[in-house]
Amino acid sequence: MALNPDRLFPIEPDARAIARRLFETVERLPIVSPHGHTDPRWYADDEAFPDPASLFVKPDHYIFRMLYSQGVRLETLGVARKDGGAVETDGRTIWQTFARHFHLFRGTPSRLWFEHALEAVFGIDERLNEKNADTLYDRIAERLTDPAMRPRALYKQFGIEVISTTDAATDDLSAHDAILRSGWDGRVVPAYRPDAVVDAAQPAFRSNVENFVALAGVSLDYAGYLEAHRLRRAYFKARGATSTDHGHPTARTANLSPAEAASLFDRVLQGASAADAELFRAQMLTEMARMSVEDGLVMQIHPGSFRNHNPDIFGRFGADKGADIPRATGYVEELKPLLDAFGNDPRLTLILFTLDETSYSRELAPLAGHYPAVRLGPAWWFHDSPEGMRRFRELTTETAGFYNTVGFNDDTRAYLSIPARHDMARRVDCAFLARLVADHRLDEDEAQEVAVDLSYRLAKQAYKL
Amino acid sequence: MALNPDRLFPIEPDARAIARRLFETVERLPIVSPHGHTDPRWYADDEAFPDPASLFVKPDHYIFRMLYSQGVRLETLGVARKDGGAVETDGRTIWQTFARHFHLFRGTPSRLWFEHALEAVFGIDERLNEKNADTLYDRIAERLTDPAMRPRALYKQFGIEVISTTDAATDDLSAHDAILRSGWDGRVVPAYRPDAVVDAAQPAFRSNVENFVALAGVSLDYAGYLEAHRLRRAYFKARGATSTDHGHPTARTANLSPAEAASLFDRVLQGASAADAELFRAQMLTEMARMSVEDGLVMQIHPGSFRNHNPDIFGRFGADKGADIPRATGYVEELKPLLDAFGNDPRLTLILFTLDETSYSRELAPLAGHYPAVRLGPAWWFHDSPEGMRRFRELTTETAGFYNTVGFNDDTRAYLSIPARHDMARRVDCAFLARLVADHRLDEDEAQEVAVDLSYRLAKQAYKL
Amino acid sequence: MALNPDRLFPIEPDARAIARRLFETVERLPIVSPHGHTDPRWYADDEAFPDPASLFVKPDHYIFRMLYSQGVRLETLGVARKDGGAVETDGRTIWQTFARHFHLFRGTPSRLWFEHALEAVFGIDERLNEKNADTLYDRIAERLTDPAMRPRALYKQFGIEVISTTDAATDDLSAHDAILRSGWDGRVVPAYRPDAVVDAAQPAFRSNVENFVALAGVSLDYAGYLEAHRLRRAYFKARGATSTDHGHPTARTANLSPAEAASLFDRVLQGASAADAELFRAQMLTEMARMSVEDGLVMQIHPGSFRNHNPDIFGRFGADKGADIPRATGYVEELKPLLDAFGNDPRLTLILFTLDETSYSRELAPLAGHYPAVRLGPAWWFHDSPEGMRRFRELTTETAGFYNTVGFNDDTRAYLSIPARHDMARRVDCAFLARLVADHRLDEDEAQEVAVDLSYRLAKQAYKL
Repeated sequence: MALNPDRLFPIEPDARAIARRLFETVERLPIVSPHGHTDPRWYADDEAFPDPASLFVKPDHYIFRMLYSQGVRLETLGVARKDGGAVETDGRTIWQTFARHFHLFRGTPSRLWFEHALEAVFGIDERLNEKNADTLYDRIAERLTDPAMRPRALYKQFGIEVISTTDAATDDLSAHDAILRSGWDGRVVPAYRPDAVVDAAQPAFRSNVENFVALAGVSLDYAGYLEAHRLRRAYFKARGATSTDHGHPTARTANLSPAEAASLFDRVLQGASAADAELFRAQMLTEMARMSVEDGLVMQIHPGSFRNHNPDIFGRFGADKGADIPRATGYVEELKPLLDAFGNDPRLTLILFTLDETSYSRELAPLAGHYPAVRLGPAWWFHDSPEGMRRFRELTTETAGFYNTVGFNDDTRAYLSIPARHDMARRVDCAFLARLVADHRLDEDEAQEVAVDLSYRLAKQAYKL
Repeated sequence: MALNPDRLFPIEPDARAIARRLFETVERLPIVSPHGHTDPRWYADDEAFPDPASLFVKPDHYIFRMLYSQGVRLETLGVARKDGGAVETDGRTIWQTFARHFHLFRGTPSRLWFEHALEAVFGIDERLNEKNADTLYDRIAERLTDPAMRPRALYKQFGIEVISTTDAATDDLSAHDAILRSGWDGRVVPAYRPDAVVDAAQPAFRSNVENFVALAGVSLDYAGYLEAHRLRRAYFKARGATSTDHGHPTARTANLSPAEAASLFDRVLQGASAADAELFRAQMLTEMARMSVEDGLVMQIHPGSFRNHNPDIFGRFGADKGADIPRATGYVEELKPLLDAFGNDPRLTLILFTLDETSYSRELAPLAGHYPAVRLGPAWWFHDSPEGMRRFRELTTETAGFYNTVGFNDDTRAYLSIPARHDMARRVDCAFLARLVADHRLDEDEAQEVAVDLSYRLAKQAYKL
Repeated sequence: MALNPDRLFPIEPDARAIARRLFETVERLPIVSPHGHTDPRWYADDEAFPDPASLFVKPDHYIFRMLYSQGVRLETLGVARKDGGAVETDGRTIWQTFARHFHLFRGTPSRLWFEHALEAVFGIDERLNEKNADTLYDRIAERLTDPAMRPRALYKQFGIEVISTTDAATDDLSAHDAILRSGWDGRVVPAYRPDAVVDAAQPAFRSNVENFVALAGVSLDYAGYLEAHRLRRAYFKARGATSTDHGHPTARTANLSPAEAASLFDRVLQGASAADAELFRAQMLTEMARMSVEDGLVMQIHPGSFRNHNPDIFGRFGADKGADIPRATGYVEELKPLLDAFGNDPRLTLILFTLDETSYSRELAPLAGHYPAVRLGPAWWFHDSPEGMRRFRELTTETAGFYNTVGFNDDTRAYLSIPARHDMARRVDCAFLARLVADHRLDEDEAQEVAVDLSYRLAKQAYKL
């Protein structure tokens, strides 16, 4: 099942031919990856990736959540336990388990990303199954020893122009410094993610804030805390950061008076009620917008995930183990305090994401189609998929147009999936455009221009990269 | 308008050809009907069905709700009044009214089910209208006298392998006993539906519970009440039941301490506040899950219908008269108490349904794609339709895959529509799969296997049939 | 880029051919426009329209919200400031700004409406851009001086049979009187929109009510207030009105006792709390339904917009400047008090609209498919677009059928877009029908009949025009 050159294009031959022409001009454009979760150490150290299971199975929550849902224990997949208890360590055994359950991924984007990486990176165009599992494991493992399979070489092979990591506010960015010092010409920039010092509902909040102000050399009060943000943002910016990222349970914002905010800060530092924690997060989104107006960092809000829904999994394996579940998420009243303050300010770029697709046409497109500061991030997480991306375009374009969106984010921690994901996004966008051309809503020369914008230009512009 | 062999397949010729090939392998697979509302007396007594109106119009809430919405009074359709007042009794007159309004069903699944039954069972391929109403009435009426039109013969003709009815917790299942005693080789199993002894908001709740514990021979306290459930479940299981079914206003669950639950039981028995009734239903879902872990009965939750929205219709005609309206339904916080307790337990199968399609991609697919206990029921009720089924697949597959779904439920009380509904579901699933093959997301051999799974295997497995 | 005769039709050739045949029979049907916002003065005075910018840019909130979202200030577009401050007054300059940003409208309905008007009314089939902006401006400006471009001539050219305006309850309808007196054979009817005397949250509410009762010559108490509604409704009806329109933040209704309602009226007249204002609006919807039962005016509810979300824009430019944002909107519990009272009454026609597409399949279609009084208005506002209309049909037809919908409303204040919008709606409906025919869900002769119903008959019937 070699990758078909027409995959994800419209089925109807005329529209497919248009999609093909559109895709030809964008297929080889450089990859701009303004939001993701690759490890900056990879680029700093440029070491070989370990075995196939460590590359494809263990770190991919899409993969292991599906296997877990069908009764495969996380221990069997080599996912590390918090208590250090025994888990499967043999990569080949993990890989065989994956192969045995490979049919579960039929119809999912994981399947498409995996097979793209398999063929594009390893030259393997066979479908994984129990029988060929060992052979494929060996072929991949052998290939991983090749220097051409090191992170920096792959960066070049993938055609990456710039990639952003996501980094805690208290991160020293030593990996980024090492990359800069190394003289390597790849561009790896950090992004400022202050959730751990903003979310007072986290048990470690107080100690996080203490570290944070200590790192910035300021006092442990609200003025010091805000100053610490300013200083850390500047620190990130000096290392190439152009954006901040905020993963909140809701999109709620607030704009308290300085005295109220300072008093709230004092309260949440002592241990926050759920309401105070929510209000503090809300207030901090507005403060972050205020600082973005000053320092120009692009602001991203990723709301709506109920994190760690499964206490058993969280207790034994920790966060990010496929147990985050989306919830209904409102934006209209929630964002109003922030937008009242900065929504009309041309210096702010506020990129909104959602896990609640009902907000696309009802709230997000109408907001982005009006407020100068607002842009729409691409289909996210569970919706970063062919049907999900199609729905995103169908539900936002008529109200917000293409130019209030920001191109594609791969959002991945799976390095090999980066070209696969950009390939998928470009194909799905070309398919969408081809349908508009085929039913005469758009001329093909315009679609061509839009295809390049969606694949490359808009991400650069929106993220100031 | 004879049934077209390509109905409901993709329009594009290549995809249509793929769908045709997929459908060929599943078209004649036996029908597994794990959830429905046919009357077990039919199979026990095997008597001829009465006239065409009693078969097609009077018992079908899809049909009479549409006619009612356009000004046809329920009395005119022969729907029985609670006060025994006069309603139309002449089947032919009712049939003529139906025929006169037949255009109302354009674009609806009722139309497709009706015409499938007309052609497949009665050999009639004319479109019903005022002019041919009498002739068709006569042809159907005449055919109904044929022994081949009796329930058991139709069971065979339809290719049913097993069918489940839905039965009150207090039902003596005498019809099921009669079927078993009769030596007939059809397989008709009951399903345990305890709503009437779980929903304290129903006026008859207390007397229902009194009957319930009396039937089980236990005391009227919480321990007795739980024991009554265990005993009645065992009674159902002994007669072939493999599942329970819970039709609640919301998906809320709770996991109170035994003392709290017992105290709540005592309270609701005295007349429940709305909040206590909701909490008791919530608690009982978790108790039912606990018992399912013990006895292996598969658990189904059907939440989100505002029952009997129209007080005038309810007052004059009673429940199930087409006046139930869906509401926004949340699952993420609602199911957490139950899932915290049993979501990771491989002994539980919890099948979730929804009338709120926004939950497909936002909540249900992410839950089913993670929790080992959770599976997704098919598109339900108003969404048991070509567009509804397509949306179900488009919105759930990328996150939950195919194997966290449970195949098709016909959910019907209209016996003749059973083959029509399974035919529709198989066609729509084959159409969905054909599109994945045509745009190269899936290989055809895999699609073939999935088609069989969706049409037959998954229902057997999920429902342990 | 001349208008393609196949625009918006299905891409697949067979389905496209069907759509073409369906469209041929409806393309030239008269326009029935039962809900819109054209200025009755236009028809009364029949004066030439001013320059191209005043026609296409300044009054169109779809156009200027998009431009504003991308940094174009409203002053630059000639939108009048409340303080009378300077804004751009040169039509040509405004037009050039529009032309320079024309790419923003790619994929939007505004683009399609604009180009339809350009070609159909002005014979221009070039795509607007910076280079041809001046030439096109001149061609349009010159053409506007032609008497054939006056409102009454265009009414004929557009094939309008009847058009409704929307008018405040306190409007003297002098323009409508002038039209009637003039002997012109066009039919322009008013619609009764009492929001300003119903919404106690508006600052001017008390003075609005004072004017209202004074105009009716009744006392300033609840009995007088209700009588004023009756009298003003009769006044509108005498001038051709067949409908009322209610633009509320929510769909909430109430049915208080007369004493409670009178007391509530007294309270809100003194300055209403948010809760009392909501309750009063709720009560008044039910009162309006009661009056509709009496006087036969068709009732429309347009809920769910958060008006004037942007305080800066509202403060400087006022209402209706593209800053209204939809919100999640419920109907099931909200409409119950009204439906309990009048939902089964054949004398009431209640047409429901939504900005929350999630309610289509979950709430609105099930309500309209049951209650005799309820009909569904077409896709509205942001969803009055090819994808929006398609979703409306896909999400409502299977449950409510076609005959519980009311055809198309253009809802526009942009006169030249009227034929463009009806053309779009007819094409999208024919495309939807063609797909049903192509996959054998509907016969073509039926689709033909439905196409005429959706394009013409249903609007006439539902609005009693």
